[in-house]
Amino acid sequence: MRVVVPYAVHDPKSRLSSVLSREERQEFSRAMLADVLNGVEKAGGSPVVLATDTIDVDVPVQVDDRSLSEAVNSELVRNPLPIGIVMADLALGTSRVFGDLFATPGDIVIAPGRGGGTNALVVRTAGFRVNYHGASYLDHLRVAYELEASLNEVDSYRLSTDIDEPSDLVEVFLRGEGAAADWLQDTGFRLEITEGRVTVTK
Amino acid sequence: MRVVVPYAVHDPKSRLSSVLSREERQEFSRAMLADVLNGVEKAGGSPVVLATDTIDVDVPVQVDDRSLSEAVNSELVRNPLPIGIVMADLALGTSRVFGDLFATPGDIVIAPGRGGGTNALVVRTAGFRVNYHGASYLDHLRVAYELEASLNEVDSYRLSTDIDEPSDLVEVFLRGEGAAADWLQDTGFRLEITEGRVTVTK
Repeated sequence: MRVVVPYAVHDPKSRLSSVLSREERQEFSRAMLADVLNGVEKAGGSPVVLATDTIDVDVPVQVDDRSLSEAVNSELVRNPLPIGIVMADLALGTSRVFGDLFATPGDIVIAPGRGGGTNALVVRTAGFRVNYHGASYLDHLRVAYELEASLNEVDSYRLSTDIDEPSDLVEVFLRGEGAAADWLQDTGFRLEITEGRVTVTK
Repeated sequence: MRVVVPYAVHDPKSRLSSVLSREERQEFSRAMLADVLNGVEKAGGSPVVLATDTIDVDVPVQVDDRSLSEAVNSELVRNPLPIGIVMADLALGTSRVFGDLFATPGDIVIAPGRGGGTNALVVRTAGFRVNYHGASYLDHLRVAYELEASLNEVDSYRLSTDIDEPSDLVEVFLRGEGAAADWLQDTGFRLEITEGRVTVTK
């Protein structure tokens, strides 16, 4: 299955600015991307990075500098189905969870993100279009309903956890198994447990 | 399987104080408890509420006003194994996910919570003790390791989502299927989507 992994090359992960410099955010987001590509490949998928600019990775790259939704919808129009769409910041993704995602039946398979987002999709029916703005999970349910497409949700903590904010780094630290978790450790981040709350600190 | 559901009767869910009054927090936490008990029963479990004080529910109640960890460990000592331990604020829990939890093999089965917590356990081996303070997930891995017990993790978004803070209410709103979601709606909460962020507001 062609698996599209959208990736913003410039100024990635801006909501991590309070804890990571611009260069660190680039390194960290590249480490997360590497983990996702690795997991997808090991699960039998054929990843393609849908990047906003040229980028050096070991898999095919499609450059498209339009908005995320426009670029992904162009992929859905131009390629045979099924297509997977997996966010590049799923640092807890493993080959096992990606394999479960790809193996889940349904015209549309959705792995919701925390906060109403859509972290991964498998599209097996023509006419489905994405809209990542706002509560995309609800939008995607509606689109599937209007197409009378069968829909299945994947209940996965790992796929629900996209890494956007400093508090998300705790999850990478505790549960990550790849390059992103290694990068955090190597950069000097440590777990801190204060008053029963767990945070990461450098 | 005996499934212990710890419940704090007085001043529950204090971290929701900014959006819910004390009375509302009591109603909401009771609705979540009802959802959990219902899901556990439908999954074939035999729930017991481990409450800090007397409480009127349709299942057996064990009153123990000691700390959460002490009360749960007393349950583990006094009852035959296996025992399940499920937090009372898993408002996204369904009979399906509880069923998957109970059916997962292993001396210890753990469903981690976001932020390093432990949202659900199945204990099938003698000698295991809980410690819910701090990063309990790591503590429980260590205890299992020291006991040389086999351990399996359940990868479930629904079980990873305990409802502690206002931002968690979005999850109940979007994905809840029971009394807690109904209560939020009936109390006048609505989803609000601003600048791509999803919150709940009243």
